[in-house]
Amino acid sequence: MTMNYLLQQAPQNLPILQASFGLERESLRMNAAHHIAQTSHPEKLGSRNFHPYIQTDYSESQLELITPVSSSTKEARRVLGAITEVAYRSMEADEYLWPLSMPPKASEEDIRIAQLDDAFEYQYRQGLGQRYGKLLQSMSGIHYNMELGPDLIQQLFETSSYSSRLAFTNDLYLKLAQQFLRYRWFLTYLYGASPIAETGFLKEDLEHPVRSLRNSSYGYVNASTIHVSFADLASYVRDIEHYVETGDLSAEKEFYSAVRLRGHKHNRAYLTEGIRYLEFRCFDLNPFDTLAISQETLDTVHLFALALLWIDSPEQVDETLKTATELNNQIALAHPLTPLPLEADAQTILDAMEAIISHFQLEEYYQDLVDTVKQQLAQPELTLSGQLVRQVKDQSLQEFGRMQGQTFHDHAWSAPYALKGYEEMELSTQMLMFDAIQKGVHLEILDEEDQFLKLWHKDHVEYVKNGNMTSKDNYVVPLAMANKTVTKKILARAGFPVPAGAEFSSKAAALRYYGQIEKRAIVVKPKSTNFGLGISIFQDGANLADYEKALDIAFLEDTQILVEEFIAGTEYRFFVLDGRCEAVLLRVAANVVGDGIHTIAELVDLKNQDPLRGRDHRSPLEIINLGEIELLMLDQQGYRPDTILEAGQKAELRGNSNISTGGDSIDVTNQMDESYKQLAADMATSIGAWVCGVDLIIPDTTLPSSKETPNCTCIELNFNPSMYMHTYCYQGPGQALTPKIIAKLFPEIV
Amino acid sequence: MTMNYLLQQAPQNLPILQASFGLERESLRMNAAHHIAQTSHPEKLGSRNFHPYIQTDYSESQLELITPVSSSTKEARRVLGAITEVAYRSMEADEYLWPLSMPPKASEEDIRIAQLDDAFEYQYRQGLGQRYGKLLQSMSGIHYNMELGPDLIQQLFETSSYSSRLAFTNDLYLKLAQQFLRYRWFLTYLYGASPIAETGFLKEDLEHPVRSLRNSSYGYVNASTIHVSFADLASYVRDIEHYVETGDLSAEKEFYSAVRLRGHKHNRAYLTEGIRYLEFRCFDLNPFDTLAISQETLDTVHLFALALLWIDSPEQVDETLKTATELNNQIALAHPLTPLPLEADAQTILDAMEAIISHFQLEEYYQDLVDTVKQQLAQPELTLSGQLVRQVKDQSLQEFGRMQGQTFHDHAWSAPYALKGYEEMELSTQMLMFDAIQKGVHLEILDEEDQFLKLWHKDHVEYVKNGNMTSKDNYVVPLAMANKTVTKKILARAGFPVPAGAEFSSKAAALRYYGQIEKRAIVVKPKSTNFGLGISIFQDGANLADYEKALDIAFLEDTQILVEEFIAGTEYRFFVLDGRCEAVLLRVAANVVGDGIHTIAELVDLKNQDPLRGRDHRSPLEIINLGEIELLMLDQQGYRPDTILEAGQKAELRGNSNISTGGDSIDVTNQMDESYKQLAADMATSIGAWVCGVDLIIPDTTLPSSKETPNCTCIELNFNPSMYMHTYCYQGPGQALTPKIIAKLFPEIV
Repeated sequence: MTMNYLLQQAPQNLPILQASFGLERESLRMNAAHHIAQTSHPEKLGSRNFHPYIQTDYSESQLELITPVSSSTKEARRVLGAITEVAYRSMEADEYLWPLSMPPKASEEDIRIAQLDDAFEYQYRQGLGQRYGKLLQSMSGIHYNMELGPDLIQQLFETSSYSSRLAFTNDLYLKLAQQFLRYRWFLTYLYGASPIAETGFLKEDLEHPVRSLRNSSYGYVNASTIHVSFADLASYVRDIEHYVETGDLSAEKEFYSAVRLRGHKHNRAYLTEGIRYLEFRCFDLNPFDTLAISQETLDTVHLFALALLWIDSPEQVDETLKTATELNNQIALAHPLTPLPLEADAQTILDAMEAIISHFQLEEYYQDLVDTVKQQLAQPELTLSGQLVRQVKDQSLQEFGRMQGQTFHDHAWSAPYALKGYEEMELSTQMLMFDAIQKGVHLEILDEEDQFLKLWHKDHVEYVKNGNMTSKDNYVVPLAMANKTVTKKILARAGFPVPAGAEFSSKAAALRYYGQIEKRAIVVKPKSTNFGLGISIFQDGANLADYEKALDIAFLEDTQILVEEFIAGTEYRFFVLDGRCEAVLLRVAANVVGDGIHTIAELVDLKNQDPLRGRDHRSPLEIINLGEIELLMLDQQGYRPDTILEAGQKAELRGNSNISTGGDSIDVTNQMDESYKQLAADMATSIGAWVCGVDLIIPDTTLPSSKETPNCTCIELNFNPSMYMHTYCYQGPGQALTPKIIAKLFPEIV
Repeated sequence: MTMNYLLQQAPQNLPILQASFGLERESLRMNAAHHIAQTSHPEKLGSRNFHPYIQTDYSESQLELITPVSSSTKEARRVLGAITEVAYRSMEADEYLWPLSMPPKASEEDIRIAQLDDAFEYQYRQGLGQRYGKLLQSMSGIHYNMELGPDLIQQLFETSSYSSRLAFTNDLYLKLAQQFLRYRWFLTYLYGASPIAETGFLKEDLEHPVRSLRNSSYGYVNASTIHVSFADLASYVRDIEHYVETGDLSAEKEFYSAVRLRGHKHNRAYLTEGIRYLEFRCFDLNPFDTLAISQETLDTVHLFALALLWIDSPEQVDETLKTATELNNQIALAHPLTPLPLEADAQTILDAMEAIISHFQLEEYYQDLVDTVKQQLAQPELTLSGQLVRQVKDQSLQEFGRMQGQTFHDHAWSAPYALKGYEEMELSTQMLMFDAIQKGVHLEILDEEDQFLKLWHKDHVEYVKNGNMTSKDNYVVPLAMANKTVTKKILARAGFPVPAGAEFSSKAAALRYYGQIEKRAIVVKPKSTNFGLGISIFQDGANLADYEKALDIAFLEDTQILVEEFIAGTEYRFFVLDGRCEAVLLRVAANVVGDGIHTIAELVDLKNQDPLRGRDHRSPLEIINLGEIELLMLDQQGYRPDTILEAGQKAELRGNSNISTGGDSIDVTNQMDESYKQLAADMATSIGAWVCGVDLIIPDTTLPSSKETPNCTCIELNFNPSMYMHTYCYQGPGQALTPKIIAKLFPEIV
């Protein structure tokens, strides 16, 4: 084996950090009474038959959160965060995830085997329960999958003496697996976090807290009769197959090892098709971190793995690993506050880590990580188990687990309109991503800034941009809706109410039109309006001089102008999806309502406390500013910021009802007469839109609507209507729309 | 009847000019030998069973060009122009339209009855041939349909004493019809244009040229036994029905009158559903105008019609109309250069026209029209027949007809890439409109500036924007193609060749990548490029310092940068439609090739003579400018504008191959290896695009392509690929693409 030599000879600009990562985190669901939840796997999470992100592990209450392959540790942790958040918000609101690897106080009866449809999986779990005990199977950990980058492998291969890339890759991963097992104790020391078992878990009491019960002989290990060689791949494959044949293992996957070869279902395939990646299985849940593993740990382990490739391989593999297993067990069962035994040669690892940093000139961040490890080596109280042991009370971590679990629960439920880690994306897209993860639709962000998602289930792929731009709409319909003239013509031709009006390219022609609008409420506007420039509104009709002036103003902005009927009434947004109106929203201009006590400025501050209010469209509602426009608006009503309004008295702060300037969103879906919803849906259908925001002006919602007597006018159709504003409202229950998009795109999974 | 009173009492701002118009023009197809063409109705025009724009009238060679309803005379004439042009360019290239109402020298045998599928229509024509003679039926005219505006009628109705709008409208149109017949002689005087018949047409020779044979008793009139009353609608309906019952008329439509009530198939419907518009049928073809009727005539007739409503109605309708018919016949048969007889009271009409102008303050244009009419009244030689009589040679207009017909033919065939009257629209849209008209697909421009068309056939509606943005593409696919990152990911995932590369958001990460691209040709560029800013190309690989500099430059433009493989080779555009590559184009940078005689400046001038070259994308190729950039380019090659290049020697004028900067388009569809076309088609299919411009860089087109060994790289997919550039090329046959769009949108008509 010359792997370490290869690395040491590699050029500085070798893509040493190129790798991909995947995480699998297990955790028990807990109920409000702080017992293992006896509820079934959350229905909101759809089907476990295919869910790529959220599964159940051994028991019905043991969630397994699985990230897709990610091109960096940062990305892996970000997506784990999203999956964790979805898991939390899909459980009963008072359930939470047990943050510790060791289960809470519980008995065998509290553990219900996962109710999977797959008969083999259920029987397999039953067998494990009989062999190891159901409680033992409820220990949880986090698995760290790592694949070295293709360019990294290719460049190393090219400078090697190997002629087969497959053989090279297999040897590379096998060396890494060997070294991992050899130096596994290093991770047990740093990240072991299962110091005690709650009463009843072990047959005999421990004499003292330890680093990691789970990584010790008390943990999740095969019978001592099972010996699998890691000396070469053929032996490894043969040994495991042997135990399966003899029935000592019920399946290949029952071979528990701190590292597992991955990429194929059956080990034998590695011989011909190659190992694709490794799974490191020794990580206890870090109860101080909401995701059970910190960013620093992920990167330290990455560097550690690279260091393992730098270090000379052992000559006598199986002998070396046997000794290493014993050393690891010793360190795992040592008191957390004791130092490493002398035979644990940490310096070799530290040197290799630093050699990697220096040889490949890695960023300072990596040296900082090594420095942290050095401190932890010097001060055991800085290790995870060292910190955790301080939380033990009455030989129990029950109270600490409750506290941390509750904190993480509250964190997951905060700002529920967003998906943490993705807050720079549009709210509607964040919501849609939440729903996709929840239902087990595969998700990939193709372009984050462009809100461009790829969603798929089996062979069925759907692309989504901006939350609802999908394959379900045909291309020309949104283009028609983007053009007001075209929209109006299509709607009018189909017999729907639109503002009457005419388009003019000459003032003479527009003046000739005066007789037709003389006594009517009208709007004169340039055909293309920018920021409302050139618009004149005459609510009580215009005299000829004013009309002429309005024409001049409009013609300053465009060569074509519109003279349209002005429609009085209240504007409502109808959200139509696939022929059905799913939500109706009333938007009200920014305002405060008095209480006889507070000044207007104080009322604004109070209103801004609403957790739904934020800035820059990162929240469903916007913070109200008391700026120039608002002060002018107050002044016009005879108010100042220090005016104290009487109870119920309203002060308007804006003339426009936009949410973006602090307006209120009021969900009136349930109150709105069905006839208007039907009309809006019919309008969308008539233009051929799958998704459509229909803006109707309704003078009197108590009158019903029909196509013949609409009692309303459509002023706009919107081709990419906002969804989040219907969901998280200032007032009203709110309507969840993004789940409907997912359900319509993937009817086969609902 | 108080119609004139109503008009005279109406407010000045009555929308008096509000009306819609439709034109129907007949003309005989002529062959190169200047005989009536014996060819069948042009196949290119699709099916006469439904064609809304181009039909055959009486004989197989008599085209009938029919405009849709237009909201102004200008619009009606514009669309007539388009239909005329389509008709011309759908006939044999040497056929032309006979510009005169009177047929050319011909015999009964030259007239083949239109070969219509409809048995009734064929028999009806056979009957007419027997009754009137086939040659007589070959006289051609132009019909002028006019509907008064809804607001105009409504406002007049509101101030009337009528309680039924239907009764009011019927009376209004009936009055207009009466008055039209009463004063028809006025139009015969001005616009009569059938002064002589060619030898053999009439049984006896005329003594002198006349104004309008077609509008005289020699013309296309019913038997003298047919008397239909215009006194009231009931009598009108009853009289015609009577003659149909007795067999004196074979159908209601055989009643020939200079004005016809319109809007329903059967006259009786007018009684219950109302007259919708009038058809004025007395217009001879104006052989001086390419469209057979001038804009001024259209507007003069419009004003004339309004004047008719201003003038008191006759008391004794039928008696008055009988006298009027005689007067019209007298004027029609008078020598073109004679003045009107005294009993023809033109002054009443002129006064009414001027009253309309002054009462409703119409623009000066209308007074100019009246002034022209006054001159024509004073000088008969200014009337159409007055002008035409001067063209009579040897008692024949054959030579004049040939000359005018040829001129109009050449006009229609000039700039064949455009659709005259619509030159402000995109070329591809103009071509698509041409094809729609040709195949008889209904066409409406919903927004001209936005290139937004409505096309329909029966109930099947399709909207088209920019020539190929249609319902056939789903919404998200063009959005994916608009995003280069997304496109690349999708293509790469599907196994197609795209430039290798990576995206970076930090310089450190990009520098670490250096080892992977050290010796390769690369491009460093900001993710979003504007006008090529921030792009560095290293065709022979970059040294680290240059690479670092390139990163800095790129990061100045964007927070994300791309380092991509630079692909050497020639770029080709593959136009893919519905899974098939329909055209391949090579674009070559602006250049001239020497001839050993001309200077470069002269060569540029010569090249710019190409009728395909124009400015501002109004032509398929652009004029080459010898501007600063071109001069610099020449200088780099050691040339000046006055350099005389040797024969075959090429001077490059631009570094970029854009057509918009004077580049050449070369159609290589037939030469390109099928394997590349298939690959391009497969790429479009894999992203789900119906229409797609695939840009491939091919180093060597002699090598075949396959998905496994593509021998090319895709650098871009275009979601709204230009079509015209494939059709009218600098070199190569060119590929017509827009007809394929029409055929795919409307497979039922092909």
